[in-house]
Amino acid sequence: MSETSALAGPVEIVGVGLIGTSIALACRRAGLEVLLTDTSPDHVRTASGLGAGRARTPEDDPQLVVVAVPPDALGAVIAQVLDAAGPDTVVTDVGSVKAGPLAAVAAHRSVSRYVGSHPMAGTEHSGPLSANAELFDGRPWAITPGPDATSSATRIVEALALVCGAVPVHLSPAEHDRAVARTSHVPHLMASLVAGTLAGASADHLALSGTGVRDVTRVAGGDPRLYSQIIGGNAAAVAALLAEVRDRLDLALEAVTGGDRVGLESLLAYGQAGTRAIPGKHGAAPQPMAAVRVSVPDQPGELARLFADAGDSGVNIEDVRIDHDPGRPVGLVELDVVAGRAEELHAALESRGWTTHR
Amino acid sequence: MSETSALAGPVEIVGVGLIGTSIALACRRAGLEVLLTDTSPDHVRTASGLGAGRARTPEDDPQLVVVAVPPDALGAVIAQVLDAAGPDTVVTDVGSVKAGPLAAVAAHRSVSRYVGSHPMAGTEHSGPLSANAELFDGRPWAITPGPDATSSATRIVEALALVCGAVPVHLSPAEHDRAVARTSHVPHLMASLVAGTLAGASADHLALSGTGVRDVTRVAGGDPRLYSQIIGGNAAAVAALLAEVRDRLDLALEAVTGGDRVGLESLLAYGQAGTRAIPGKHGAAPQPMAAVRVSVPDQPGELARLFADAGDSGVNIEDVRIDHDPGRPVGLVELDVVAGRAEELHAALESRGWTTHR
Repeated sequence: MSETSALAGPVEIVGVGLIGTSIALACRRAGLEVLLTDTSPDHVRTASGLGAGRARTPEDDPQLVVVAVPPDALGAVIAQVLDAAGPDTVVTDVGSVKAGPLAAVAAHRSVSRYVGSHPMAGTEHSGPLSANAELFDGRPWAITPGPDATSSATRIVEALALVCGAVPVHLSPAEHDRAVARTSHVPHLMASLVAGTLAGASADHLALSGTGVRDVTRVAGGDPRLYSQIIGGNAAAVAALLAEVRDRLDLALEAVTGGDRVGLESLLAYGQAGTRAIPGKHGAAPQPMAAVRVSVPDQPGELARLFADAGDSGVNIEDVRIDHDPGRPVGLVELDVVAGRAEELHAALESRGWTTHR
Repeated sequence: MSETSALAGPVEIVGVGLIGTSIALACRRAGLEVLLTDTSPDHVRTASGLGAGRARTPEDDPQLVVVAVPPDALGAVIAQVLDAAGPDTVVTDVGSVKAGPLAAVAAHRSVSRYVGSHPMAGTEHSGPLSANAELFDGRPWAITPGPDATSSATRIVEALALVCGAVPVHLSPAEHDRAVARTSHVPHLMASLVAGTLAGASADHLALSGTGVRDVTRVAGGDPRLYSQIIGGNAAAVAALLAEVRDRLDLALEAVTGGDRVGLESLLAYGQAGTRAIPGKHGAAPQPMAAVRVSVPDQPGELARLFADAGDSGVNIEDVRIDHDPGRPVGLVELDVVAGRAEELHAALESRGWTTHR
C-alpha cells in the first residue's frame, strides 16, 4: 500500500515558484529537511523567509530533487540535475506534459532514477509569495514512471505526492499526455476558439451573453504564453484529439447546413453523455443535482445572509453560481443541491423572506 | 422613452409552460388581466391555480397575444393567432430564434401587428409549476420587429418586457439570430463537441479532470432535443459562424502539428481578448478581479460561516466557484473580488481561522 515513509529527505526543490515553494512548504510541514535552488537568489531568500527550507550548499546530498521550472526548460534542467546528483538521488519534475521531459533524458545513464509527475493544482498565480502548503490537498497527482524507472524511485515520488496531501494517479507518460490533452488542453483550445468569435463582435450582440458563454470561455482567459508552452509541448496528443474534434465539427456543420435534425440531436446527445462521464464530487459517481435559484441584492453581506440561512436549513450546498447578466439590478444565485433536498431548501429560504425560483 | 403604459391588457398567453406562465405571473403582478390558452387543459388549470390568470373564452379580445410554444411550432401558431385575432390585437412570440417565425408569417395580411421577441432567461426546468414572476428581472429581452411591424405594436411588446422587469434590446430578426449564434448556439455546439471527447474515455484519464473542463462542458448537459430545435432553427447564422470557427480550428491544428509556438500563442491571445469583450456585471466594463481561495470542510453550515465572515469584511463577493476535484477531502472555494480588495479579504478570513491560498 501507499505510504509516506519511503521519503526521508532531504528534498531539494529546483525552481521555487508557486508550485516548487508549495511543495517545499508541504514537506516542511511533514518535518522533512528542504533545500532550495533557483536562478534567482531573491526567490530563494523569499521562499526561505516563508519557512520553505534553506539554500542548498554543494555539500548537501538530497534523497529527492523536484524540478519545478517552466515547461520549455524542463528537459535540460532534469538532465543537469541527473548529471550532478549523487548515485542514490531520485529526480522528479512537476511539468504539465510528461513524454517530452522523459525523451530529453531517455539516453541518460541515470534515467532509472527519474520519475516524472504532475500535480493537478491551480496555477493562475505565480511566484513563491503565492505558495501554500495546502495547494495539493486532495488533488490528483499523476505519477508517470518511464520504462527504465526503478520501483524504489517511483515509491519515493509517490510518497512526495502523499506528503503533499494529494491523491496519486499512476499513468505512463504517454497515457498522461493523452489524458491531459482530453481533460485540459483541447478544452482550453476550444474555449479559446469560442472566445475568439467574441473579439470584435458588436456590443448589441454581446449584450445577449448569458452564463453559458461565460462558462464555456472562462479558461481562455489564461496566459497565452504559458498555455502555448503547455499545449505546444503536448503536440502529438493534442493534434490527434483535435483532429477527431475537427471531424466531428464537420459533421455538426453538415447536420446544421443540411437541416439534419436527427444527426444534430445525436451529436448533442453524445455530448450530453460526455458531461456525465466526468467524475463527480470526491470521485463518486455523479448524483442527480437540482438548482435552487435565489434573487440576491447586490450588496455586501447579502450573500452571507443567504448562506447563513441555507446553512441553517441543514441542506449541503454542492455548488454555487452567481449570474452576472448585464443590466441585472439584483444578482441571481444558483445553489446546486442533491435533487432530493431541493424542495426543503426552497421552503427554508422562502420562509426567511428570500425570493426563490424553480 | 420606454414606458409600460402602452400595455393595458388583457394579455393572452398561448402555451403556459415555464416561460409563458412566468410572463403571465409578471403581468398579473402589474395588475393586468391575463387570459390563458394551452392545448393541455391541465396546464391552464395549473397556471390559473398559481394566480397566472383565467382560461380564455371566445368573447375575450386581448390587446396582446404572447405565443410561448416549442420552437418548431412557432410559425404555425403565430399565423393561427393572427388569423383569429381582432383587428387591433398585437402578437409576439418568445422563441429563441427570430427570422424563421417571421418568415412563416411574412405574407400574412396582419404581419404589421406581429413583433417577435426573446427573453434571455433560463429554461433548464419546464412546465407552469416551475414558473415565477421574477424570472426576467434585469435580463436582456430582445425585441425584433420585422420590416412591416408598426411602431405602436413594437411599443406594446417593449412594454411587456418592461412589465416583466427585463431590459429591452432592439435588434432586427436577422441580427438577433446572428447574435445568439455567437453568444449561445455555437458555444453550445463547441461545448458539446468537447464533452463528446469525454464519452467513453477511461476512468484513469478522466480522474485528471479539473474545474476547467467542467466549466467548458457544463452547457452541453442541456436537453439535446430542445437544443437541436433551437440550433436547427438558426441554421444559416450558426453554419456561417461555425464555418469560421472550423477554419480557425484548422489553423490551431496546423500550429500545434507544425510546432508553430508563435502562431499558437497568437490564437490563444485572440481568445483571451475575446473573454474580455463579454460585458461585465450589470453591463459595465469588466473590472480586474482577483480570486481568494479558501479551504472549506465539506459539511453543512461551513459555507454559511465562510460567507458570514466574508460579509463582515465588507468586501463584496462578485463570483464564487466551488472546486469538485475527485478525492478532495475539503472543498476549495474561490471568491472573486475586485482586485484592489483581495488583500483585505485574505486578512479578514485568515484572522477568523480560515486557510486562504493566493
